Amino acid sequence: MSTTTFGTAAQQGAPVQQPSPMPFHRYAAFEPVDVPDRTWPSRKITHAPRWLSTDLRDGNQALIDPMTTARKMKMFDLLVKLGYKEIEVGFPSASQTDFDFVRKLIEADHIPDDVQISVLTQAREDLIARTAESLAGARRANIHLYNATAELFRRVVFGIDEAQCIAMATRGTELVMKYAEQHLGDVEFGYQYSPEIFTQTPTDFAVEICNRVADVWQPEAGREIIFNLPATVEMSTPNTYADQIEYFGRHIRNRENVCVSLHPHNDRGTAVAATELALMAGADRVEGCLFGHGERTGNVDLVTLAMNLFTQGIDPQVDFSDIDEVRRTVEYCTGISVHPRHPYAGDLVYTAFSGSHQDAIKKGLEALEKKASDAGQTIHEVPWEAPYLPVDPHDVGRTYEAVIRVNSQSGKGGMAYIMKNDHSMDLPRRLQIEFSRVVQQQADSLGGEVNAAQMWRIFESEYLTRHTPLDLLQYRSQSEEGVYTVDATLRVHGREKQVGGEGNGPLSAFVDALGMAGHPVRVLDYTEHALSAGGDALAAAYVECEVGEGDDARVLWGVGRHSSIVTASVKAVLSAVNRRAAL
Amino acid sequence: MSTTTFGTAAQQGAPVQQPSPMPFHRYAAFEPVDVPDRTWPSRKITHAPRWLSTDLRDGNQALIDPMTTARKMKMFDLLVKLGYKEIEVGFPSASQTDFDFVRKLIEADHIPDDVQISVLTQAREDLIARTAESLAGARRANIHLYNATAELFRRVVFGIDEAQCIAMATRGTELVMKYAEQHLGDVEFGYQYSPEIFTQTPTDFAVEICNRVADVWQPEAGREIIFNLPATVEMSTPNTYADQIEYFGRHIRNRENVCVSLHPHNDRGTAVAATELALMAGADRVEGCLFGHGERTGNVDLVTLAMNLFTQGIDPQVDFSDIDEVRRTVEYCTGISVHPRHPYAGDLVYTAFSGSHQDAIKKGLEALEKKASDAGQTIHEVPWEAPYLPVDPHDVGRTYEAVIRVNSQSGKGGMAYIMKNDHSMDLPRRLQIEFSRVVQQQADSLGGEVNAAQMWRIFESEYLTRHTPLDLLQYRSQSEEGVYTVDATLRVHGREKQVGGEGNGPLSAFVDALGMAGHPVRVLDYTEHALSAGGDALAAAYVECEVGEGDDARVLWGVGRHSSIVTASVKAVLSAVNRRAAL
Repeated sequence: MSTTTFGTAAQQGAPVQQPSPMPFHRYAAFEPVDVPDRTWPSRKITHAPRWLSTDLRDGNQALIDPMTTARKMKMFDLLVKLGYKEIEVGFPSASQTDFDFVRKLIEADHIPDDVQISVLTQAREDLIARTAESLAGARRANIHLYNATAELFRRVVFGIDEAQCIAMATRGTELVMKYAEQHLGDVEFGYQYSPEIFTQTPTDFAVEICNRVADVWQPEAGREIIFNLPATVEMSTPNTYADQIEYFGRHIRNRENVCVSLHPHNDRGTAVAATELALMAGADRVEGCLFGHGERTGNVDLVTLAMNLFTQGIDPQVDFSDIDEVRRTVEYCTGISVHPRHPYAGDLVYTAFSGSHQDAIKKGLEALEKKASDAGQTIHEVPWEAPYLPVDPHDVGRTYEAVIRVNSQSGKGGMAYIMKNDHSMDLPRRLQIEFSRVVQQQADSLGGEVNAAQMWRIFESEYLTRHTPLDLLQYRSQSEEGVYTVDATLRVHGREKQVGGEGNGPLSAFVDALGMAGHPVRVLDYTEHALSAGGDALAAAYVECEVGEGDDARVLWGVGRHSSIVTASVKAVLSAVNRRAAL
Repeated sequence: MSTTTFGTAAQQGAPVQQPSPMPFHRYAAFEPVDVPDRTWPSRKITHAPRWLSTDLRDGNQALIDPMTTARKMKMFDLLVKLGYKEIEVGFPSASQTDFDFVRKLIEADHIPDDVQISVLTQAREDLIARTAESLAGARRANIHLYNATAELFRRVVFGIDEAQCIAMATRGTELVMKYAEQHLGDVEFGYQYSPEIFTQTPTDFAVEICNRVADVWQPEAGREIIFNLPATVEMSTPNTYADQIEYFGRHIRNRENVCVSLHPHNDRGTAVAATELALMAGADRVEGCLFGHGERTGNVDLVTLAMNLFTQGIDPQVDFSDIDEVRRTVEYCTGISVHPRHPYAGDLVYTAFSGSHQDAIKKGLEALEKKASDAGQTIHEVPWEAPYLPVDPHDVGRTYEAVIRVNSQSGKGGMAYIMKNDHSMDLPRRLQIEFSRVVQQQADSLGGEVNAAQMWRIFESEYLTRHTPLDLLQYRSQSEEGVYTVDATLRVHGREKQVGGEGNGPLSAFVDALGMAGHPVRVLDYTEHALSAGGDALAAAYVECEVGEGDDARVLWGVGRHSSIVTASVKAVLSAVNRRAAL
């Protein structure tokens, strides 16, 4: 074959895309800070950041139906149970409900000693006073002050210049200190400032305003200040956020007493990535919500971030070992379902439908089982490696049952896995192929998934419950000096018939008898196994037969189950004969 | 105030996170290729990549209920309409349904001339032959061959070494050429090879096997080869994929006739980011699915990728100007809903519930309206900038109606926006504050969102339909030399009463009359506007009144609507008086 010949009839260039009618010219490329000597692309994340959950604030404010107090309490308890130590619980100066909830948490002694609650406030004196008031009596608390520093916001929303903006932040910080001193003398108190929207603020100005706020707060050892740098709107590819964070970390004064905190949103679908790259760029702390709730596209998803650390061998310092319980609670509190493809937690994410994926997973799990058993361990103790499964479903509280699911796109691997796992039937490879066609046909014509019970019904009616034209009524065999004879009573087309034959084994004797009765069969392959342990154990027999003769012959599998392995194999041969008759 | 004094009572260090009970030690950090001189972090994406939709292959195979032929056809037509020129339509050698669908596309002449279909195959001769057969008669077609190159797959699934793996790929390529020549002489034919799973394959080996495949195909000008580099399982932070892609692009031979294609999955929730960074690293082409369908967590989402380009001023070369129609069609075809927080397309992503966000959006839209009107343009023609809205909802076929939504967390801005936009009532600022408390109370006690119609009912019953204790039955005013006199008939606690007064305007005359009748009122602020254009236009009047005297006095707003502006203002005063009586 000459490739030149072929080339002439072949490719004349790739298809050409056309301009879209969309008004892209109304938008401009984001201009991030320039950090040509960035170091983050060569760094790795080696430990968990400090986490803050804002499920009760940013998460809650963006729900169609904000949480009732009971749901908030359930969410708070969940967050504590998962291991979150910093929890933003509301915006008490903006909402009476939030104020009351903060009071209830404190007064009902709901907050463990090692958990710090925080609350958000704008930089107005009356709001700051009310905010401090809401925290009275807490053991550990943090006030989170923000003002708008982004040029667009200063211009169209507030009509203030940079100097006024700085004055608002420093004055706000003074007021936080004043009212904290007034109301929170006994509280282990922390302070957090957010230049809002950090991503849309010139990074130099963000550094400047934070430095000026720090001048007021005077951070020192044991008295940190948290600078939270919100990507309240995600503006560009995630590397630009990392550049901004690395630049900020280099230029902020007194870096060792500053906690650099991230607060990413997901407008461009890259919040998780932006967070990870920004952690590589030196950030210390991450604010987000479970499953990515929050305004619009949501805050960054704390579950995915934690599990991403976990799968790299890093302790996430939060506990998602029962991820479905977390999911149920969050769904209850928010009224919004987790998407079936949500990383680590969706219904379908440990699932393989396609044949080649199923086949690889099946082999991978078998190899891992072997490795574990060789080491005297269970599969859940050895280092995890399996095709297509970046995490052991067991480690998040799932079973393998849901891993292999079968639809019309599935191949033999998945079906074999389910037949073995759910029904203890270890089908020989060529039978897998034959059966997978049967299942595919059913799935194609019925539509939808074929679950384990449905698959069993398909298998049963195809292989185990065909009793015409031949049905076995009685069976006896004897052996003498290596020669087996068999006597059997069959029902043939409704009439009883005695048949007999002989061979070098009970099965070949039965086949001989069938041939003499006018049903020529040749056994091509045969395997069997026990179905369960113990004296009354069932056995399964799989027989590949050529049924019929000459042009009429067809190769088919038959399957039989019986407490006697011999009877099981006899039934398997009849299964093949009866299947042939049904074609 | 001394910060030192305050400091002593304050922060003793941040809360400390605890080790998680999860078995993170079972996992190891991913070891990517080392590219210390990477250039991608300083690059920008400047144009759309070539897109391939695999909705009908990777997307379809991972559905609980794979698409029927009718649904596949609908999906194909949608993809063509959106502007996709490369569409993977199935895995014909693995599924009869897929084979039949490819035949139907070709035989029913369903494929536009400028669209290239492609089909996937494994590297076995019988499958390749059948694959080529499926494409006979197409105008443009591509065969996509893959084999497993990842060490784990070679070891546990296939039991082959690197040399056998290369032989499988090169032999497969030869067979594709042989059967393409046999069946596809008239087809404008392309070839694509995927080393599967690229991300889990040592990058050097991926380069080697691709170079060996290229030796067989012999790419040259007008005869490209596509090397598709699947992150079939997302293994690490997205920068590692970009490093792998940059490395591959540098080391693959004959780069100018190679199309470097990405095929990212979303196991770590960073598929969009990985794609974008890999495009910066030099990739030419992206394979994905609409809204991120596909095995497990799905393939990378083509909608988000395109819209991310769009919002940076780059023509995506695909058309999402009616994104909800796209969403409906995909939901119909896949049976899986798009999540309410899905970037660009979810129900909630153009929505602001929180007061401060709503306020900023309202002001931002007003500023943009003004800018547009000053330029003699509509708001949809000027460069877009609005707080919290990275894209104009209009550009994807949405309206502003859904942008501002009100729940108990919302402030005056959102309510004012809805009252103005949906009900043409332009409330004065202090009335906004008063009314927002009324709405918040209702939202708190009822739970859930307050939609525009519900808000109107709250407004109406609070301000417009209170007729006790005072109801206006008749009203007349006259003026002479700047002095206004008024005669009115009121129903007071059910009994008719004549009142009269005078003042320097009709409203002050009416207030005078009320005072004489024992209802002291002082008008503090007053505004009015027409509600609609034309002769029979309604007017709305808003009056801030001090109602009552001395300790009993309360400041309240009243609202009136009438075709006569004077009567509207009189009704507004009565509204305030009646509201006072109801307290």
